[in-house]
Amino acid sequence: MRIALLGGTGDIGEGLALRWAYHTDHEVIVGSRDPDKAREKADEYETELSSRGRDVKVNGFTNEMAADRASVVVLAVPPYHVSDTVAAVSESLSEGDVLVTPAAGMNRDDDGFHYHPPKAGSVTALVADAAPDDVPVVGAFHNLAAGRLADLDADLGIDTLLVADDGDAKETVRLLAEGIDGLRALDGGGLANAPEIEGITPLLINVARNNDGLHDLGIQFR
Amino acid sequence: MRIALLGGTGDIGEGLALRWAYHTDHEVIVGSRDPDKAREKADEYETELSSRGRDVKVNGFTNEMAADRASVVVLAVPPYHVSDTVAAVSESLSEGDVLVTPAAGMNRDDDGFHYHPPKAGSVTALVADAAPDDVPVVGAFHNLAAGRLADLDADLGIDTLLVADDGDAKETVRLLAEGIDGLRALDGGGLANAPEIEGITPLLINVARNNDGLHDLGIQFR
Repeated sequence: MRIALLGGTGDIGEGLALRWAYHTDHEVIVGSRDPDKAREKADEYETELSSRGRDVKVNGFTNEMAADRASVVVLAVPPYHVSDTVAAVSESLSEGDVLVTPAAGMNRDDDGFHYHPPKAGSVTALVADAAPDDVPVVGAFHNLAAGRLADLDADLGIDTLLVADDGDAKETVRLLAEGIDGLRALDGGGLANAPEIEGITPLLINVARNNDGLHDLGIQFR
Repeated sequence: MRIALLGGTGDIGEGLALRWAYHTDHEVIVGSRDPDKAREKADEYETELSSRGRDVKVNGFTNEMAADRASVVVLAVPPYHVSDTVAAVSESLSEGDVLVTPAAGMNRDDDGFHYHPPKAGSVTALVADAAPDDVPVVGAFHNLAAGRLADLDADLGIDTLLVADDGDAKETVRLLAEGIDGLRALDGGGLANAPEIEGITPLLINVARNNDGLHDLGIQFR
């Protein structure tokens, strides 16, 4: 399967790109607004993978071209770029493609980080509102520490929750998620259940800030 | 230490009462609006503990009398009873007592359960607003499955997050939490960080509903 990581030059994009390219046979495509930056990061990922004996091709393109080539398109962009990015690539999405959103809206005050969803109710809902009608949206990979994901020596042993209203799309993403060693995909229900999942992202930061020895946290349901 | 569980006849109260009485030497007092019901449940807990070779006294009183006798007072009542219960016992609380709130506001629609905080921003904030000024509030024990907690054969292996603006009160509750085998207490920061923690409670229900084989869930940060 071809997976495009829009904003795949950023830290969560890097983590997912490396994990999929390392642990699975899926073809990873890095997207960016700047195609030179996309190619440069794609080369970096290839070098990292090659140093671990994994010789695979990672291509870099504009977000539009990346989305055009892939059947699963991951919006690895900050929440405030989600709407623009979906608008930019919507002509490049075809019926049957799946759009995946891992972003969570946060703000910060003296106490720590707080969940700050957009007016749509969640970033996931914002993506669903912006997506073409024939392209199902799956919320996933919200609660993964980017640095740990990008460190292929780091064990995961954590869960990711999937929300979607389209069962087939959710199953596609579940298989992609489970392809990553140490990551368990759990069904979080429909898109309406996204806010509580996105809200864990700031919580993970708060817990790491307040507890010595904990960092790059994920969660496991047990 | 004497711990009063207001609403200690309910399921989360039962779980905490049994765990503290079983795993620690703290004295557990069951509170209820109905003192007969409190005594009846306290007797039940004694019988359960005795059947496991743990012969301890568990007393049952009105919420007011339970709060009066204890230095740590846990509001094990539903979120819509929190304000009334704090008002009812506030004359019974003394300077230096600690008020603990495990409740989370939820509602439910076709997709599942959703976090539905009171206007104060969280149930924890509601308790802090209602509590006497000299009684610090600690949010804790939000994300524990009551049935699993009350089953002394069940291993926990899960975390609870503590939020408080008063460091001494938080430390008191941390020690109480860590006294329960298999429960790790983590610092979630100040009271303002409560919403994301309370929001995990509906999420745990959604995850259990949507995934075969998972039930009575807790979380572990890792």
